[in-house]
Amino acid sequence: MPLTFYKGLRKPFGQDHRSPEVRRLLGEAFRACLALLLPLQRIELVSFVPNKQYLAFASEDGTKRTRAVNTALFNPDFAEWEAFAAAMEANELHGFEPARITRLIYSVAISFCCAVDLIHDRDNKTPATFFEYLIGHLFAWRLGVNPQTSIQVLNLDNEETHLTTDFIFDLGEQRPKFHLPLKTSTRERVIQVWAHQRVLDGVFGTGRFLGTPVILTETKTDAKKGEVIEICLPEQWRIYQMHIAQLKRVYYLDMPAAYIRLNEVFPPIHVKEFGEFFWEVDALVA
Amino acid sequence: MPLTFYKGLRKPFGQDHRSPEVRRLLGEAFRACLALLLPLQRIELVSFVPNKQYLAFASEDGTKRTRAVNTALFNPDFAEWEAFAAAMEANELHGFEPARITRLIYSVAISFCCAVDLIHDRDNKTPATFFEYLIGHLFAWRLGVNPQTSIQVLNLDNEETHLTTDFIFDLGEQRPKFHLPLKTSTRERVIQVWAHQRVLDGVFGTGRFLGTPVILTETKTDAKKGEVIEICLPEQWRIYQMHIAQLKRVYYLDMPAAYIRLNEVFPPIHVKEFGEFFWEVDALVA
Repeated sequence: MPLTFYKGLRKPFGQDHRSPEVRRLLGEAFRACLALLLPLQRIELVSFVPNKQYLAFASEDGTKRTRAVNTALFNPDFAEWEAFAAAMEANELHGFEPARITRLIYSVAISFCCAVDLIHDRDNKTPATFFEYLIGHLFAWRLGVNPQTSIQVLNLDNEETHLTTDFIFDLGEQRPKFHLPLKTSTRERVIQVWAHQRVLDGVFGTGRFLGTPVILTETKTDAKKGEVIEICLPEQWRIYQMHIAQLKRVYYLDMPAAYIRLNEVFPPIHVKEFGEFFWEVDALVA
Repeated sequence: MPLTFYKGLRKPFGQDHRSPEVRRLLGEAFRACLALLLPLQRIELVSFVPNKQYLAFASEDGTKRTRAVNTALFNPDFAEWEAFAAAMEANELHGFEPARITRLIYSVAISFCCAVDLIHDRDNKTPATFFEYLIGHLFAWRLGVNPQTSIQVLNLDNEETHLTTDFIFDLGEQRPKFHLPLKTSTRERVIQVWAHQRVLDGVFGTGRFLGTPVILTETKTDAKKGEVIEICLPEQWRIYQMHIAQLKRVYYLDMPAAYIRLNEVFPPIHVKEFGEFFWEVDALVA
């Protein structure tokens, strides 16, 4: 029952995003999702994304299908999670190079999304909240602090105002803070991420918050035809990066091909696979 | 059949938003929605919005309910539409003071939303597109030009880039242009509106585009309990207005109480009922 562990996560996550209990429940949810999905029929989807294959799981009675799963990234191996959890426990990620972390965390996240696709009707909120638990735990562990989701804004006239944000990780004085929007997909709503960064830059000064959104995937599946596309707006991203605010990184679990190229245009937007964060974070805050 | 007229709108709207044929089909859709809704049972909802009452229509078999309808604004009177259409035809809105226009256009928009609520399951796209037809027609008529939804952005290095936007009405040289986002409701997604305004200001210069979003309502209904609330974020709006960009007006069909007060804070955000536009537009562009 993936949802039992999901429901169990709310309280310990609220107390301390970094806690071993959160990690344990994330793992149990992953294990339960695999137990649910692995016996099911896999349907190969027609991929219109270059060099990527996608599959969907079909419910036993054939009435429901999950969202698209990247075949090359999906690794239904619970032992891999156990190894990673042990490495986190030991504070030593040796052997977990970026691609290996990306693949594992993609598998955990997409498994839960697929499980919810089969259990609930059109529920986007539950997968989004699980994604917050998962990525929030990993970032809080790596950065060593819990995030906040609102921040006081200085105002004239003795007013007290709070800006509501995605996760903000405050590393303390003389260090940058992280601004971490989390999305299972963005499409045209992505402009929100730049807008929040703009507010933070405007209120506190440019460079004090490193904007590093984490996004699961940009795939969209036509359920009737079984076709998968990626919805990408690279030209719009360039305009946002030049005219709204500067994001430091955009991390993807399933990196869209159209955004990889943004690393190579000038001025570049640094779009990277999620696992890179764990290896480059020290350089980012230096 | 409201959806027949809806489907018929796509082509004439695409050719000329201002055309009498668009106005005729909008009216026929309104009439068809009233024919569908008026025989149905009305359920009084529990309103948590001060000084506003809301109702919902129940489907004949009792299995479905529409979204919330503001009882005081809802005027199921097709003759009122005919009078307004005749006034538009004659280019003379005498007698149509702002509150009267707001009430009529609210009734047209919410009737269509309610009809779709009963015909389709969880369809937000069809009401949103109808709302674009309706408001797009009225603005194009009043401003005398058709809008565009993308605009060329000047770039170095001989690149050609287009920014995708909501409706942009170009009134010609030496006059401001209108930037018109249209939403049936915004909630936390409203930051997109300020972000797009920021891009326009950044690319073309502040003051050249007047940002005047038009929003239907901010109500949210708890279907099980039959309770209606308004989701408003006035403190966040003030931060966006001060730190992202300046919107010239925010027009509502069903104006949320919490936003009326933004007219009175300093610096003010001018939030007005929709009908005001038709009377103040000449002052806005002067």
